[in-house]
Amino acid sequence: MVNQNKESKITLLGAGPGDPDLLTLKGVKALQTADVVLYDALTNEALLEHAPTDAIKVYVGKRSGEHSYPQETINKLMIDYALNYGHVVRLKGGDPFVFGRGYEELDYAASYSIPVDVIPGISSSIGVPGLQQIPVTHRGMSESFWVITGTTTAGGVSQDIYQAAESNATVLVLMGLKKLSKIVEIFKAAGRHNLPAAVVQNGSSEDEKLVVGIVETIESLVQQENIKAPALLIFGEVVSLHPSFKTLVKQYASIA
Amino acid sequence: MVNQNKESKITLLGAGPGDPDLLTLKGVKALQTADVVLYDALTNEALLEHAPTDAIKVYVGKRSGEHSYPQETINKLMIDYALNYGHVVRLKGGDPFVFGRGYEELDYAASYSIPVDVIPGISSSIGVPGLQQIPVTHRGMSESFWVITGTTTAGGVSQDIYQAAESNATVLVLMGLKKLSKIVEIFKAAGRHNLPAAVVQNGSSEDEKLVVGIVETIESLVQQENIKAPALLIFGEVVSLHPSFKTLVKQYASIA
Repeated sequence: MVNQNKESKITLLGAGPGDPDLLTLKGVKALQTADVVLYDALTNEALLEHAPTDAIKVYVGKRSGEHSYPQETINKLMIDYALNYGHVVRLKGGDPFVFGRGYEELDYAASYSIPVDVIPGISSSIGVPGLQQIPVTHRGMSESFWVITGTTTAGGVSQDIYQAAESNATVLVLMGLKKLSKIVEIFKAAGRHNLPAAVVQNGSSEDEKLVVGIVETIESLVQQENIKAPALLIFGEVVSLHPSFKTLVKQYASIA
Repeated sequence: MVNQNKESKITLLGAGPGDPDLLTLKGVKALQTADVVLYDALTNEALLEHAPTDAIKVYVGKRSGEHSYPQETINKLMIDYALNYGHVVRLKGGDPFVFGRGYEELDYAASYSIPVDVIPGISSSIGVPGLQQIPVTHRGMSESFWVITGTTTAGGVSQDIYQAAESNATVLVLMGLKKLSKIVEIFKAAGRHNLPAAVVQNGSSEDEKLVVGIVETIESLVQQENIKAPALLIFGEVVSLHPSFKTLVKQYASIA
């Protein structure tokens, strides 16, 4: 039912990497006052339980490579619902501004003079390695981390990955599983064959899966373990801090 | 009171950038079962209210450049409390693994065979720009972001900043306010005089303050506005998306 008395507003809300308990308190409060929730494929549906039972919940499923709705349609839906129903919570996986096209939505809403609140979420780029006890930074090992999309607008591999492969940063690639061959090739061309590397499927969710190796071995490990998207790629010395890497080193030593 | 029946365990908990509502639900649950909370200067004390009233709360104040307790002492306190009282929540500003020395604490606990849980937090590197509606990534503008510490173990500027100044990444520097002169010099040496830049003091807190300019002007803006640590430095085209940057461009145009 259309309520003309309600003020139109939009909240861009980051849902975190998957575990519904990784939502923030601020996120819970936003959902509790939602008239409409527009949500992505990447967010756990349990999060919707924070919204009132009579709130409208619309799945606008966006997943790497599979867009149920074009971005323009999502933008328009968001405005229509805000104008007609009041508070729209746009619930997005991870953080709204980490490859989430959040700014496009914010900008579109601004063009209609609808106020937008942003609530950050745990980005899987930091949270997923952390939950695996792989620190993105560590004294004496990594003074920085570089987060890159594996899927560019043009469909190719980001030029930034070439630079990152030459850097000392811990490199985290989101939406990059399909491009793993090419990315591994780039690291090899930079002479980083032995750099520790890991891939985490569906971090923080029940079907989380991890493979740990080095640049040279990571692709075959991904195939062996049948790792599926969404997955995070991690390249960097910090991967060597994971317990299974130590086991790996012992195995290699015993073979040699 | 020492409770011999309680199982020793440690939770490394990221508190987020400052606003206590940016804690996760998982973080709330951990605090609710805490016997001891060891907390940093950077975390808001309101967070302690989630812990039981009879839990022991110990301030181990660590702030950029001012360490009330050496890291070793914190490590030892953490173990002593875990062995004697049970569940220790180590509450850290931002995310435990983003320049938080979290892995050192995890590693120390592991050497005593005390189980450690990690709960990620909103890192100010992503959350603080986001709350200012500056997206760390944006289609056609930035395919990556690079997060770097401004304060290295050796006391100098990280070599990674030299590489970052040459890259297309959005560059985020934590704990870098004291090194701003040097960092600006590095960006200028890379020919990036006109790159949009911003500095956010105490992001997400009540005394949050923002200055927006370009590499050439950012240092004098920081002085004029008397920006204090903790502060986040943001370098990148994405800063131009902030409304006050557009005002700035208009001002320059009217002078010219």
